[in-house]
Amino acid sequence: MAEQVSNKQVIMKDYVSGFPDESYMSITISTLTLPLKLPFSGNGVLLKNLYLSCDPYMINRMRKPHASSYVDSFQPGSPISGYGVAKVLDSGDPNFKEGDLVWGITGWEEYSIINATQALFKIRHTDVPLSYYTGLLGMPGMTAYVGFHEICSPQKGERVFISAASGAVGQLVGQFAKLLGCYVVGSAGSKEKVDLLKKKFGFDEAFNYKEEPDLDAALKRYFPEGIDIYFENVGGKTLDAVLLNMRINGRIAVCGMISQYNLEKPEGVHNLMNLIVKRIRMQGFIVTDHYNLYPKFLELVLPYLRQGKIEYVEDIIEGLENAPSALIGLFTGRNVGKQVVVVSRE
Amino acid sequence: MAEQVSNKQVIMKDYVSGFPDESYMSITISTLTLPLKLPFSGNGVLLKNLYLSCDPYMINRMRKPHASSYVDSFQPGSPISGYGVAKVLDSGDPNFKEGDLVWGITGWEEYSIINATQALFKIRHTDVPLSYYTGLLGMPGMTAYVGFHEICSPQKGERVFISAASGAVGQLVGQFAKLLGCYVVGSAGSKEKVDLLKKKFGFDEAFNYKEEPDLDAALKRYFPEGIDIYFENVGGKTLDAVLLNMRINGRIAVCGMISQYNLEKPEGVHNLMNLIVKRIRMQGFIVTDHYNLYPKFLELVLPYLRQGKIEYVEDIIEGLENAPSALIGLFTGRNVGKQVVVVSRE
Ligand SMILES: NC(=O)c1ccc[n+]([C@@H]2O[C@H](COP(=O)([O-])OP(=O)(O)OC[C@H]3O[C@@H](n4cnc5c(N)ncnc54)[C@H](OP(=O)(O)O)[C@@H]3O)[C@@H](O)[C@H]2O)c1
Ligand SMILES: NC(=O)c1ccc[n+]([C@@H]2O[C@H](COP(=O)([O-])OP(=O)(O)OC[C@H]3O[C@@H](n4cnc5c(N)ncnc54)[C@H](OP(=O)(O)O)[C@@H]3O)[C@@H](O)[C@H]2O)c1
Repeated sequence: MAEQVSNKQVIMKDYVSGFPDESYMSITISTLTLPLKLPFSGNGVLLKNLYLSCDPYMINRMRKPHASSYVDSFQPGSPISGYGVAKVLDSGDPNFKEGDLVWGITGWEEYSIINATQALFKIRHTDVPLSYYTGLLGMPGMTAYVGFHEICSPQKGERVFISAASGAVGQLVGQFAKLLGCYVVGSAGSKEKVDLLKKKFGFDEAFNYKEEPDLDAALKRYFPEGIDIYFENVGGKTLDAVLLNMRINGRIAVCGMISQYNLEKPEGVHNLMNLIVKRIRMQGFIVTDHYNLYPKFLELVLPYLRQGKIEYVEDIIEGLENAPSALIGLFTGRNVGKQVVVVSRE
Repeated sequence: MAEQVSNKQVIMKDYVSGFPDESYMSITISTLTLPLKLPFSGNGVLLKNLYLSCDPYMINRMRKPHASSYVDSFQPGSPISGYGVAKVLDSGDPNFKEGDLVWGITGWEEYSIINATQALFKIRHTDVPLSYYTGLLGMPGMTAYVGFHEICSPQKGERVFISAASGAVGQLVGQFAKLLGCYVVGSAGSKEKVDLLKKKFGFDEAFNYKEEPDLDAALKRYFPEGIDIYFENVGGKTLDAVLLNMRINGRIAVCGMISQYNLEKPEGVHNLMNLIVKRIRMQGFIVTDHYNLYPKFLELVLPYLRQGKIEYVEDIIEGLENAPSALIGLFTGRNVGKQVVVVSRE
């Protein structure tokens, strides 16, 4: 029997310029009649969204298209989209059926019609929190895994530094490095986060970069013999200080540069000559290039999770109407751990 | 019979600060009695220096020792040292005998006593100009070979950009890339050098960076589809413009940053976020780490040279007394090709 349901949506009102705030988004309510006769034949799915993921890269999609965009910009006036966990209500794609749980790219709304089903992964393990598929078991988890294990060529005993270390990606990089037997130090933006790093995630050391007037001196304190591996999440001044402290044959996985995303012009990095002197490899990567490794990743990480060898901290906000502020909060460090928005628990 | 000979030397008077000039060096004359009873037993050689090599890195050895020095500084009041070609006059090392020709680290003087014989290579092929062992067949040649073939992972058909392209290293990188079947563009600082690149070294295109107010636009002109491989010799603004024009999965061999060597504070590089978006690998290296490849390198390059498939342009200055200005000239681009100083032709 047909049922009229409302569909709350997060709309991007206009392209963001400068530092983002919530005013660029609005909540609107449209309606949908269920069960939906899917408006396409042979592919696509109708999803009920459960958890949405707030990810820093989304801010790039909220800006006007420009020469070096690597992701399409969102359409002003339309709902934005991002990673999420959802339940399949109806499917025109033989790979998905009603009742399946999936993670991947969906809309910031209660119900979504997704044609790009190649960007959806079927969830096969449900003995773990479903929301983890926005973090530990989803894109950020894969980012930590690929960035550390595939890009950094890490060896037992090496000295690893991680910035934005308590976040969705960083907390995992640190734990992967500890599991391998590395010495691990992280930086984060509050005392609470520093405590998490040391007490919950087992980092050897951690510091609040906001309280370090001299980042070079801070790094020299924690790495008197220098850094073998830097997992770069923030860019700018942190990168410059790290370059001064790298060891010979060091590696830098360039995952993100969040401190630069909202600047008119990115800051200058001055110490690149160290790349030569220290024979450093600096390697950028985008996790989606490596999704073929997802099954291998799950094989590694699910046992760790079940055995309690990996911790994962989420910052869970209830309600789609709170999603805009949760997203913006990434850029002020409001989130403690992986920022998740609950749209519906079932 | 003992013979008293004079030994002309290039002395560093004081540490260089800021932009170098000749006044930091002086020519002095000491004496030496030959044949020398070597003042060491069991190792070391007495050399008669024939050709000396002017290399940009030497300026780092002329500065006061500082935290990130990777080479020892020269001693004020002593002769400086660098790569050269020499003849063995006397030897306490069983690996060398009187009459041998060698290349490696020697003094900027007519005669040198060298204890660090591990930094000397015996010259076994003399059907080629001896001076080439300061360039094509010596350290700069190895730098081009290692930097291009080992660091850049080049593929036929890829688009290659080289800065300081007409120099000791750059002219070879371009020719190696052409031999592999790449599209090759170089930048250099004069019309004469640009002509050399196109007419003598077979680069597909070349431009005078000093006449390009907008380097980004220049690169877009020569690389409408972007750059796969950048061989970095200069750093600074050139690197920043290149980062905007790299292709996905691009590689940057970080060989040198000569535009930065004489600045109080290195310039800022702003476009590093492209490393992520384009999945770029940026790899610093120091040629001496790879000297184990020297025999393999000779096997590749000697046949090319004998068959006329590789050209090599030298800028030869006569006389040790002209060595200081030749060295300083590297930093104003006075040299056209590999800068060599003739101390003696036999
Ligand atoms: N390459 C890829 O494929 C890929 C994939 C996923 C994520 N990433 C990147 O990885 C990085 C981490 O992402 P995530 O999802 O784990 O985010 P997150 O760390 O959970 O959240 C962002 C955190 O960044 C820190 N931050 C914000 N502004 C900052 C600034 N100006 N300077 C320094 N730190 C700042 C804040 O923590 P503090 O309180 O500690 O400052 C904030 O909590 C981001 O740069 C992201 O773009 C890349
Ligand atoms: N990593 C290693 O192991 C290794 C080994 C050898 C050399 N290197 C580096 O490789 C690079 C090339 O060395 P090389 O021996 O072949 O020297 P070179 O190119 O023969 O001589 C230096 C040239 O650099 C250019 N230059 C000088 N100042 C500049 C500036 N401010 N901006 C742009 N270009 C400038 C000049 O050419 P223009 O007229 O074209 O400006 C000059 O002729 C240097 O950076 C050197 O330090 C590294």
